[in-house]
Amino acid sequence: MSKLSIVARLKVKPESVELAKSELVKLVAPTRQEEGCLEYNLHQDNDTPEVFVFYENWESAAHLDKHKESDHYRHCFGTVGSLIVERSLQKLTCLE
Amino acid sequence: MSKLSIVARLKVKPESVELAKSELVKLVAPTRQEEGCLEYNLHQDNDTPEVFVFYENWESAAHLDKHKESDHYRHCFGTVGSLIVERSLQKLTCLE
Repeated sequence: MSKLSIVARLKVKPESVELAKSELVKLVAPTRQEEGCLEYNLHQDNDTPEVFVFYENWESAAHLDKHKESDHYRHCFGTVGSLIVERSLQKLTCLE
Repeated sequence: MSKLSIVARLKVKPESVELAKSELVKLVAPTRQEEGCLEYNLHQDNDTPEVFVFYENWESAAHLDKHKESDHYRHCFGTVGSLIVERSLQKLTCLE
């Protein structure tokens, strides 16, 4: 299977930025330990702090699917899920 | 100055995808050689091949400004500029 890159965007309620941030940050370290995770970076938008962006590189789509079943992913989005007002995910192929 | 992450999106005309791709790919190697460039990855959207996405990490905003004045950047967008139908750039802070 081929490598998969992801840009995932979340926008949360303005009053929930700090809570969302503290929960999303907890995802990073355990996700980087997952099999098939090549890169996993979390960012906050400089102009719109309610927007968080993940940039991810996975060995395959199957590894990403497995990530979404992990305890840390489920736990994080169990809390953050209700704070999200917009969400998008782009599946990409890295050209270089 | 602090590190800056970028997600830049370009959408080109459907008939110009291959030309745009061949020109954008040429940007990658010389940009990675620039001072202050920490990461510079070019991608194509799996569902919408007219969409290209750059993920970039720079030591500072000043380094990114300098990149936009480089010969390879000007040459690339001299060709690709007229093929673009939509363009967006997000300035981000990496949290981890």
